Amino acid sequence: MRRAGSDGGKVSPRRLPETVAVLEVRRAVRDWVGEYVSDAATGVAVALSGGADSLALTAAAVVEVGAVDALVVDHQLQAGSDVVAADAAATALALGCRSARVVAVDVAGEGGMEAAARRARYAALDEARAGLPVLLGHTLDDQAETVLLGLARGSGGRSIQGMAPWAEPWGRPLLGVRRVVTRQLCTDLDLTPHEDPHNAAPEFTRVRLRTEVLPLLEDVLGGGVAAALARTAEQLRADGAVLDALAGELLHTASDGETLSIETLATAPAALRRRAIRAWLLAGGAKALTGKHLHAVDELITAWRGQGGVAVGGGRSGSRLVAAREHGRLTLRLRSG
Amino acid sequence: MRRAGSDGGKVSPRRLPETVAVLEVRRAVRDWVGEYVSDAATGVAVALSGGADSLALTAAAVVEVGAVDALVVDHQLQAGSDVVAADAAATALALGCRSARVVAVDVAGEGGMEAAARRARYAALDEARAGLPVLLGHTLDDQAETVLLGLARGSGGRSIQGMAPWAEPWGRPLLGVRRVVTRQLCTDLDLTPHEDPHNAAPEFTRVRLRTEVLPLLEDVLGGGVAAALARTAEQLRADGAVLDALAGELLHTASDGETLSIETLATAPAALRRRAIRAWLLAGGAKALTGKHLHAVDELITAWRGQGGVAVGGGRSGSRLVAAREHGRLTLRLRSG
Repeated sequence: MRRAGSDGGKVSPRRLPETVAVLEVRRAVRDWVGEYVSDAATGVAVALSGGADSLALTAAAVVEVGAVDALVVDHQLQAGSDVVAADAAATALALGCRSARVVAVDVAGEGGMEAAARRARYAALDEARAGLPVLLGHTLDDQAETVLLGLARGSGGRSIQGMAPWAEPWGRPLLGVRRVVTRQLCTDLDLTPHEDPHNAAPEFTRVRLRTEVLPLLEDVLGGGVAAALARTAEQLRADGAVLDALAGELLHTASDGETLSIETLATAPAALRRRAIRAWLLAGGAKALTGKHLHAVDELITAWRGQGGVAVGGGRSGSRLVAAREHGRLTLRLRSG
Repeated sequence: MRRAGSDGGKVSPRRLPETVAVLEVRRAVRDWVGEYVSDAATGVAVALSGGADSLALTAAAVVEVGAVDALVVDHQLQAGSDVVAADAAATALALGCRSARVVAVDVAGEGGMEAAARRARYAALDEARAGLPVLLGHTLDDQAETVLLGLARGSGGRSIQGMAPWAEPWGRPLLGVRRVVTRQLCTDLDLTPHEDPHNAAPEFTRVRLRTEVLPLLEDVLGGGVAAALARTAEQLRADGAVLDALAGELLHTASDGETLSIETLATAPAALRRRAIRAWLLAGGAKALTGKHLHAVDELITAWRGQGGVAVGGGRSGSRLVAAREHGRLTLRLRSG
């Protein structure tokens, strides 16, 4: 945040010092806006935590876009989180944002605390964004951590393609910017970022990836690993777009609107068949699909020996969603029991 | 190797005890043979180092294939390597191999010692194999290490798709088998594998990946990482086959036999365009292609501003191989200077 007693310090709306870090973050935001925003006049929202990444993003967005609404989510998980949020909102206004709003959320529900906080945050941002795209401060380092997290899932390219630069309504202009650059920008602008204590808590997988795994990988593999992971993610994303489009065509050809032709699927390459089956199961209501589910359904096509249906998750109480092979076609139905 | 003083011990040609490890390695070899070998009667060659992986592979291949010729490469890098090689050859015969042959090589040439040894080994095996496929003992753990090595290159799916189960003349039946299983098989058969001191030398990147990085990743990500990496490699390989085939079609459409149509390439998806350009440059003699080369050539198509040609490596002394844009087409020519 702003330093105590500062009246804005070096920060002046829409006039930033032209340091190396400022210029790099501005260029990243400018490139992103050029690619994904057709009418900058309506403005963008920025998700501001008060950390270095989102502060740097906010400062650059004000210069590059003009009309910026800051959205600060108060997760109410730590004492004083309301003060941190209010401070972030004040800094946003000092940086020249058109508006700054604090949204308090209650973190609850299934899964771990990290997952519940993420769900609550995205829901609150989606509700508060008033139709604008929401810029998020994820950096190249976050992207590298996400790829490593995905590696452990082992479900192919999809699990390691990381975060998208644009997935409506979420925009990530800083995926090519190192975290050290956003910190430097804050120093250059005399901003003191909020340090989230969770970012140093070793009980979080992501923190251990950042503080233990990536430094060891950099040491063993000779540097440049984070950037290499981010580059790989970007290329896998481009590959995935082509494969998903082809799988969509395959699905269209194989489908009669409800069931799928075994013959059509069996003659397609495995990579497209698996993607088509996955899309079909998800569209049919399957939940929490795993590689095992997909493999078992694929075997109804490629290793048919009269086996029974495959429960693929989903369904309502008292019924299960089951994929089966019937008369040369794949079916997906709710079955009781 | 066989224990000193053993007359074959528990090892009896084509009769192995039915332990868990023996059955798993045998099944892996049987599945591989079923998929890739059309006529088992002509036999296979096995590259035998005397380590646990290739010993286990040899033992299982004798049972599953029958006619097995063991090829033992003596790299002559350590004192006594000839004894190790001769011992491995003797064990191969005791296990029931049709023949066992030691091939001594001289390791020399460009790059590090690891790379030079690998080149010499593959060249010697290729020469000695007498037209047979050569089975290699790479395990799931080797595959996981290869994927991690590729991550550092950051050149997308191709760099992390690991080793192929079959790339003529090389076959890898054990890519789904953990290293611990091959060790157990050796124990079950009363074989004492040779321990290559290089496998514990921390100056080798692969050794540090095995002994430091993978255990840390397993700890942080909660186990199953090696298997997940191997699964991801397998799926990326299937994806890559589809994308390479499509890129081949794109190249065929864009080419007049020598130059490429900018218009055709510009309207193709980036993932296919990049693959097509890569294949075209390699076919034209480009050497040691990097992501930077590919990016610069791609920009001749997608970010044309009248820039000059791109040197892509290759060429002879006094000339460079240069890709350029001329009259709406991509050209690849030797230029002097």
